[in-house]
Amino acid sequence: MRKEREFLNDCRRRAHRPHPDLRLGIGDDAAMIVPTPGLAWVVASDVMIEDVHFRRSYFPPSALGHKALAINLSDMAAMGAVPRWCLLTLAVPKSCDDPYIDAILGGLLKLADTHNVALVGGDTSHSPDRIVIDVTIIGEIVPELAVTRAGARSGDLIFVSGELGNAAAGLQLLERQADTGSLHHNVMPTLVAAKNALLQPAPRLRLGRQLAQNALATAMMDVSDGLSIDLSRLCEASGVGALIDEEAVPVAPGARVVSARSRQNPMELALHGGEDYELLFTAAPERRSEIEHLAGDLAALGDPVELTCIGRVTEAVEGIRIQTFHGLQPLAARGYDHFS
Amino acid sequence: MRKEREFLNDCRRRAHRPHPDLRLGIGDDAAMIVPTPGLAWVVASDVMIEDVHFRRSYFPPSALGHKALAINLSDMAAMGAVPRWCLLTLAVPKSCDDPYIDAILGGLLKLADTHNVALVGGDTSHSPDRIVIDVTIIGEIVPELAVTRAGARSGDLIFVSGELGNAAAGLQLLERQADTGSLHHNVMPTLVAAKNALLQPAPRLRLGRQLAQNALATAMMDVSDGLSIDLSRLCEASGVGALIDEEAVPVAPGARVVSARSRQNPMELALHGGEDYELLFTAAPERRSEIEHLAGDLAALGDPVELTCIGRVTEAVEGIRIQTFHGLQPLAARGYDHFS
Repeated sequence: MRKEREFLNDCRRRAHRPHPDLRLGIGDDAAMIVPTPGLAWVVASDVMIEDVHFRRSYFPPSALGHKALAINLSDMAAMGAVPRWCLLTLAVPKSCDDPYIDAILGGLLKLADTHNVALVGGDTSHSPDRIVIDVTIIGEIVPELAVTRAGARSGDLIFVSGELGNAAAGLQLLERQADTGSLHHNVMPTLVAAKNALLQPAPRLRLGRQLAQNALATAMMDVSDGLSIDLSRLCEASGVGALIDEEAVPVAPGARVVSARSRQNPMELALHGGEDYELLFTAAPERRSEIEHLAGDLAALGDPVELTCIGRVTEAVEGIRIQTFHGLQPLAARGYDHFS
Repeated sequence: MRKEREFLNDCRRRAHRPHPDLRLGIGDDAAMIVPTPGLAWVVASDVMIEDVHFRRSYFPPSALGHKALAINLSDMAAMGAVPRWCLLTLAVPKSCDDPYIDAILGGLLKLADTHNVALVGGDTSHSPDRIVIDVTIIGEIVPELAVTRAGARSGDLIFVSGELGNAAAGLQLLERQADTGSLHHNVMPTLVAAKNALLQPAPRLRLGRQLAQNALATAMMDVSDGLSIDLSRLCEASGVGALIDEEAVPVAPGARVVSARSRQNPMELALHGGEDYELLFTAAPERRSEIEHLAGDLAALGDPVELTCIGRVTEAVEGIRIQTFHGLQPLAARGYDHFS
């Protein structure tokens, strides 16, 4: 494999995006950036580890690079921030050849370019067995407009973007290398969409920014570990409870097809499956029509997204409950725990 | 092991350092920080991976946390920047119990407090086998004062702080679990110092800041992979050559003792051993006395550091050479390559 210096030179060359705010990019001890006056910096890190967050057998390297950045961009979307800069820590075992590593970098840079994000630094290392990709993202926002998890108030409506359970369905298809040959060819696009939801999630940056800029959301976060566990985190941060209407939860078609094959309830994937990277947010009921208009505006901009009201915020003492066909039940916070 | 949420709550509680610039710390999708007007942000990441950068057998967990931050602080020192904020990505296998993880965090937070750095975010994950600790550091600096690797000019003097080869000596002692019982007890403090240089390096923050504030250094970087390879990087960035005087290179006593036992030349450890995290910088010859005064000032502040002139910058065409007892020789860039 080529030496670190050559890889860093490649990185520098391929990541080079001159910008007046970027005084120093890849290649020195640190990058130097001039922040935009009046804006706050929003920073987050998300890591992907082989055999924990992905398997090499079904994850193309370009998708790895894409996803490692996408999950960080999703954190920016969840604050309503504009992502600007990123750092990449890439540790690879000897079993990854140069084209494989280049493809990881290529997937990251392609998504970065789409969102005008510049790769400004990071670290590279050998890894004994498993690929590690850790990305730090830096974004900007007017501090007063940032949407935290802590602003939900009893009576607010609860919304979610897109559909849920698609990535979890894609994961089941890929992990089980499901033989889908027996299925009707009509469902193939649905299965491809489910796999793509897992492999190449699309962060909801424009939606998050619009919700923040118009002060429409009282609290917001992205659905990374599963609706039930992420909703419980939002409720804990806001000191509130929630009542979800099961019928309203937008279950992804992929989740329905995969669940039908495995005789699961598709609601399991939609409520507890992670990695959809949709936005979960709360809003005052009187802003509902504005939110519906926003969905139309985004569609007109070529970035269509469904926004579904799935319930309402309650007092903390009521806990987190779900209205099902069988009655009102507690909604257990299940989902992905990164330490387990 | 406790759940991720409990660990994050622990992190949040233990890392909580209220500061007016920190609008949002650990616990939301991202941290939010208000930059100091007029200053630039300086950002870098450095990763430590088990069995690549350390072994659990001899690395106490508190030292792991210390070092993961220290190597990042050293990047701030190398720019002359003031470190302010950090993010921690920590991935641990099941074989690490809660007290072990707490000790990693404790070691990091202790060093962070020493330098008024706040832990504001990051990520946690399970890891199949090996510990991964990736830290991102954010510092501030007056942009015009930042010292890059690119400013060295032919005729400048080359300086290095402290002593070289100590960490490499410590690594040999720890890796070989050397039986040092046969050595005279007089050398024990020297060996302890060598091990400590590897386990708990002290970043040269005050020195770096003073050199930058007084515009004394024309180029600067930290010695992380070894003097010969790091000097070659500085020379490449500046488009210059270098002439090193072997006799002037400050060889650490630990390197001498360890080399004597293994019948090596101690200069090997000083020139090519990595991880000393000293500062390598160049300066115009007419500033030499100011630099010598600076060493005195730092000692008066209780932060003594030797500053040694080890050679001078030459034209690029002359390459990188070393004056030895046997004559003038090319200095091969050897040292740690993170991909090999």
